Amino acid sequence: MEHRNPGPGGGPTLRVRELASGRELLRFDCFEDSPHWHLDPDERDQISRLESGGDPIAQVVGMLADGFGQLLSRVAPELNPPEAKGFAEGLVALDAQLRNPPVDLEAVRADERRPSVGEKWSRYPEDVLPLWVADMDFPIAEPIRRVLRGAVERSDLGYPIHPGPTGVRELAVERMRTRFGWEPEVTRVEIITDVVQGMYLALLGCTQPGDGVVVQTPVYPPFLACVEETGRRRIDAPLVAGAKGYEIDMDALQAMVDTDTRALLLCNPHNPSGRAFSREELQGIAELAVERNLVVVSDEIHEDLVYSGHRHLPIASLGREIAERTITLTSASKAFNVAGLRCAVVIFGSRDLQQQFSSLPRHARGGIGVPGIEALLAAWQHGQPWLDAVLVHLEGNRDALLSRLRKDFPGVVAYSPEATYLAWLDCRGLEIEGSPYEFFLRHARVALADGAAFGPPGRGFVRINFATSRAIVSEALDRMAQALD
Amino acid sequence: MEHRNPGPGGGPTLRVRELASGRELLRFDCFEDSPHWHLDPDERDQISRLESGGDPIAQVVGMLADGFGQLLSRVAPELNPPEAKGFAEGLVALDAQLRNPPVDLEAVRADERRPSVGEKWSRYPEDVLPLWVADMDFPIAEPIRRVLRGAVERSDLGYPIHPGPTGVRELAVERMRTRFGWEPEVTRVEIITDVVQGMYLALLGCTQPGDGVVVQTPVYPPFLACVEETGRRRIDAPLVAGAKGYEIDMDALQAMVDTDTRALLLCNPHNPSGRAFSREELQGIAELAVERNLVVVSDEIHEDLVYSGHRHLPIASLGREIAERTITLTSASKAFNVAGLRCAVVIFGSRDLQQQFSSLPRHARGGIGVPGIEALLAAWQHGQPWLDAVLVHLEGNRDALLSRLRKDFPGVVAYSPEATYLAWLDCRGLEIEGSPYEFFLRHARVALADGAAFGPPGRGFVRINFATSRAIVSEALDRMAQALD
Repeated sequence: MEHRNPGPGGGPTLRVRELASGRELLRFDCFEDSPHWHLDPDERDQISRLESGGDPIAQVVGMLADGFGQLLSRVAPELNPPEAKGFAEGLVALDAQLRNPPVDLEAVRADERRPSVGEKWSRYPEDVLPLWVADMDFPIAEPIRRVLRGAVERSDLGYPIHPGPTGVRELAVERMRTRFGWEPEVTRVEIITDVVQGMYLALLGCTQPGDGVVVQTPVYPPFLACVEETGRRRIDAPLVAGAKGYEIDMDALQAMVDTDTRALLLCNPHNPSGRAFSREELQGIAELAVERNLVVVSDEIHEDLVYSGHRHLPIASLGREIAERTITLTSASKAFNVAGLRCAVVIFGSRDLQQQFSSLPRHARGGIGVPGIEALLAAWQHGQPWLDAVLVHLEGNRDALLSRLRKDFPGVVAYSPEATYLAWLDCRGLEIEGSPYEFFLRHARVALADGAAFGPPGRGFVRINFATSRAIVSEALDRMAQALD
Repeated sequence: MEHRNPGPGGGPTLRVRELASGRELLRFDCFEDSPHWHLDPDERDQISRLESGGDPIAQVVGMLADGFGQLLSRVAPELNPPEAKGFAEGLVALDAQLRNPPVDLEAVRADERRPSVGEKWSRYPEDVLPLWVADMDFPIAEPIRRVLRGAVERSDLGYPIHPGPTGVRELAVERMRTRFGWEPEVTRVEIITDVVQGMYLALLGCTQPGDGVVVQTPVYPPFLACVEETGRRRIDAPLVAGAKGYEIDMDALQAMVDTDTRALLLCNPHNPSGRAFSREELQGIAELAVERNLVVVSDEIHEDLVYSGHRHLPIASLGREIAERTITLTSASKAFNVAGLRCAVVIFGSRDLQQQFSSLPRHARGGIGVPGIEALLAAWQHGQPWLDAVLVHLEGNRDALLSRLRKDFPGVVAYSPEATYLAWLDCRGLEIEGSPYEFFLRHARVALADGAAFGPPGRGFVRINFATSRAIVSEALDRMAQALD
């Protein structure tokens, strides 16, 4: 297999060779322009077209699944067809590989990113390295690019089919089942524009003004804003710095939940601490929620960004009782880096919660854009090899970052994140006057996220986004070290 | 000027010639791949690059604006530079022409549209011609395609800059001013996902459950749904069939507005009747609204689709008093055919209305996608030549449709729409059993919009969408005539 002519018009080529002689028996050119295939390319070279405008990779994989033996008999009748079961499994992997050309995650160039319309690269002046908002600097997965390119080139940007029959709901359930062993009901899945919208709608629909809502600080700033802007009462339950990372202080949490507390906003994996909460921790939250009759709104958007040695557990997968009181929010947009396309899913553990959430009429939530729906489908159906490669790169960045921090930043305390591409740096030991965010922006020309926005425990902290090239992470740390000198 | 290499990588070429001799003095190749320009291409042919990844057309127009005289002196010092004022105006037109290659609006092919992800072509079986939902079948404007293609190829799909600094608000105001002589305040403009969302949020924010809300039936079905789903009381004020089109019955309307009526949902230009309401009619509505203290929610999404002899008047442009009680909703998505990208603007006539509308926190409305924002900017900044061509084609389709109806469909009554690409067909004279929508779907395999969905006066009517090739409109009418035979 090789990926030829990268860019519009190109695509993967699949060559089938006889192992012993190296003779090419079949060749499939799954190009966007004029896809075709060759029978016996070394000799007869009989060329046939593949369906243009369709999905040539699916067509080729289908041809091989249904008729490889027959094709083989036409070109090399002396050979035996492969064993059926192993071949079928191989085709699934082949399909994924054909769709995902190798991607060079180190090839991020600041001068190419700077003209972006996205805020990551456009908010700060040109000499600032932006390691703040949670976007990655990598090329998007080819299956996503392919569907978006197709929609743009075909002028296929009209009203989407009503979210019901998009297939998003079924795919979300299938994904939860295969990746996390959790099988929500298809009818309990809805599409919304983004996870933050889901948090607001959950509080508006399932709680009353003045109700207590628990947040585990430090936490992604919209968690704080959504409690305040909906007129609910914020109950801060700070995570505590433990031996290996931030931990939930269950005793403190239980003491805080009063009789007027109605909801807990969970962030799992947790932003900014990088925790992928353990079964025991989630079990503790679940028991508390059941005991005190809390609705759990669980933002699990980082579910796919979990490093080796850790795993993501959807809190709703822990049992029927906790599932029934949980609203789970997730999206392909974080792991596949298309936050600007605005498409997320909300999964309700019960019909009651779904109805309460829907007390705001659906049209008031706003329509979901075609690119967001198509990108989610492409990512979840075909993007896994890209994500696997990104995770390896991110884990390497994480380790390099942590080892450099230990070596050159003795005043900074940080845990190695178990998940997310964000690290939470305790800069209080640096004895900087004012905020470390301001300090590094001004003196290092590195834009981090200001810890103070993540709730009171975030003062003196910054969050760094390491989803870029190793070289850029390294340059940012050089600048920061120099600024501190 | 010529448009070379259509498709990715290509772009316009501008040649500057000496009129008398035809000698080429300068050539600018504003291609997406490797843009460059030639000085004295016929002789010295000195080639220089244009900025890649930027906006080569803007760069070329800028070079000509600032230094055409100097360029000319380098290649043909004997020639006089052009007169400054006319030249500057010419450059504005040149910029627009360079950005908009000619588009063949007759080249719609059903087999190419059918694989669409949009609902227009995917809802019905393959043998059905879809002339229902208000999408057009034409290729999108090149300036829109260009920005979307750029974002996809650059992997620039992260969080958009906060809607504030996108430039959408300023551009909306500028557009209203230059096209419609109306100058709302920039701070009174907000971005939402779609016009229907705006109607829901307006009713939720500015009226109370049980309040009366006037709708002018027959009307775009979400007008009816939004009153019902928000628990408001629907007051139907049917338009009446007059000599030249549907008219507002002001006496009936005034009689209907009781003391608990709080809002009027205006649709102008009106869908499905195709009316672009006159100043007198709008003045009547405005006076009523002021007298009875009504909020006017005005859907003006068809504002750019108005035919010769008619004009669009934003109701808020009629005077300060009506402006202060009006919420205007519009978008580039209808005239530029990108409904699936989900981006619209809401313009408030007063701070009070804006605050009431915002009683639902902004994040609960959902985020606006990057493609929608970028498409709106490209359309309104650079898409006018495309829209002008589309309007000419649509007006021709309209006339052909009406003349055919008069000739071959004596049982159908229809007015010629003044605006929109929709015609409203009174099929009651056909004496069809059941709904004409069902009849034409079943017997003609033509999908129209069912008039019954537009409110009680719509029974026995269908709405036909003529924004496609003349050939497809004609085939649909052939099929319908045959079914009636």
